[in-house]
Amino acid sequence: MADAPPVYAALVHHPVRSREGTAITSAITNVDVHDIARSACTYGLSGYFVVSPIAAQRILVDRILEHWREGAGARRVPERTQALANVEPLENIAVACARITERHGVPPRVVVTEARPELGLPSRSYADVRAALAAGPPALILFGTAHGLHESVLRTADLVIEPIHGRGGYNHLSVRAAAAITFDRLFGPR
Amino acid sequence: MADAPPVYAALVHHPVRSREGTAITSAITNVDVHDIARSACTYGLSGYFVVSPIAAQRILVDRILEHWREGAGARRVPERTQALANVEPLENIAVACARITERHGVPPRVVVTEARPELGLPSRSYADVRAALAAGPPALILFGTAHGLHESVLRTADLVIEPIHGRGGYNHLSVRAAAAITFDRLFGPR
Repeated sequence: MADAPPVYAALVHHPVRSREGTAITSAITNVDVHDIARSACTYGLSGYFVVSPIAAQRILVDRILEHWREGAGARRVPERTQALANVEPLENIAVACARITERHGVPPRVVVTEARPELGLPSRSYADVRAALAAGPPALILFGTAHGLHESVLRTADLVIEPIHGRGGYNHLSVRAAAAITFDRLFGPR
Repeated sequence: MADAPPVYAALVHHPVRSREGTAITSAITNVDVHDIARSACTYGLSGYFVVSPIAAQRILVDRILEHWREGAGARRVPERTQALANVEPLENIAVACARITERHGVPPRVVVTEARPELGLPSRSYADVRAALAAGPPALILFGTAHGLHESVLRTADLVIEPIHGRGGYNHLSVRAAAAITFDRLFGPR
């Protein structure tokens, strides 16, 4: 993405929805850190933020990163070192936006990947968002853990992408699978 | 995929490649079982086989399945029960092919997702394989764990799909991400 506008991803652990729809803070899952980092790196994203307001959880991310960047993991699986070079734990979405603004001089457009039809938010097709992102400015794509991003996050996003539909009615992808498919649809070869 | 030919996926733990390229048996990873099951279910696949020659490893898969189908997991996350309904641990690829033959009266075409250019196997584009699978007969898509499917498996496959390229040179997706992207490219909306 040397000539394309910078795009970042964030995996959000707060505020996300519980099964009942209330705002909760979810726990960080180890495999989410490196799986999504590898997908983000494969599709040329400029960075991947793991967002949690809990300091102890961010320290856990730092330990995972240290293992793969400098520890035994780096010696055993060097490809992973590269993927994890652009991963950073941050306390909230606003800080992630500030980080991007600081780096690129303009605030990012915030893109969410979960359309909940009952909220009546205008959602756009993948093709449409693909074109919008290619035109700039920088963007930050948010993915929700637990039962998805809380309504307060969805309502303040600049772009809402239509849900991923496969075949048939079942639609419960893991956030790792959803992120991979989203990157491929937005940045993959066409 | 009610009118489409049946397609199955298998996650292969033997024979797969070590970092050095020798044939090894990898260990089953819990998250691979339910992540790929959810992706397979979302894209309407008819079944997902977890292939390992080690009986104790297949018993582990049965325990995971039991937890999500009947145990505490089924009560807490019912969506997962549906995704795991069509998952089955099997001892090898031949048994997976036999299972499909038994069910549909014809043997499946075996599709692999890893093209290693150095082997000189003729690989086909995703669009091409998408059309081939839509035309039938049943198919079995193999995914390799560790450093990918062993050469002996690649050489005997009926269809080899081109590697997934993102943007730039990095290409080390997790098998969970690769499976999700493969299903989306082969069976997603176009």
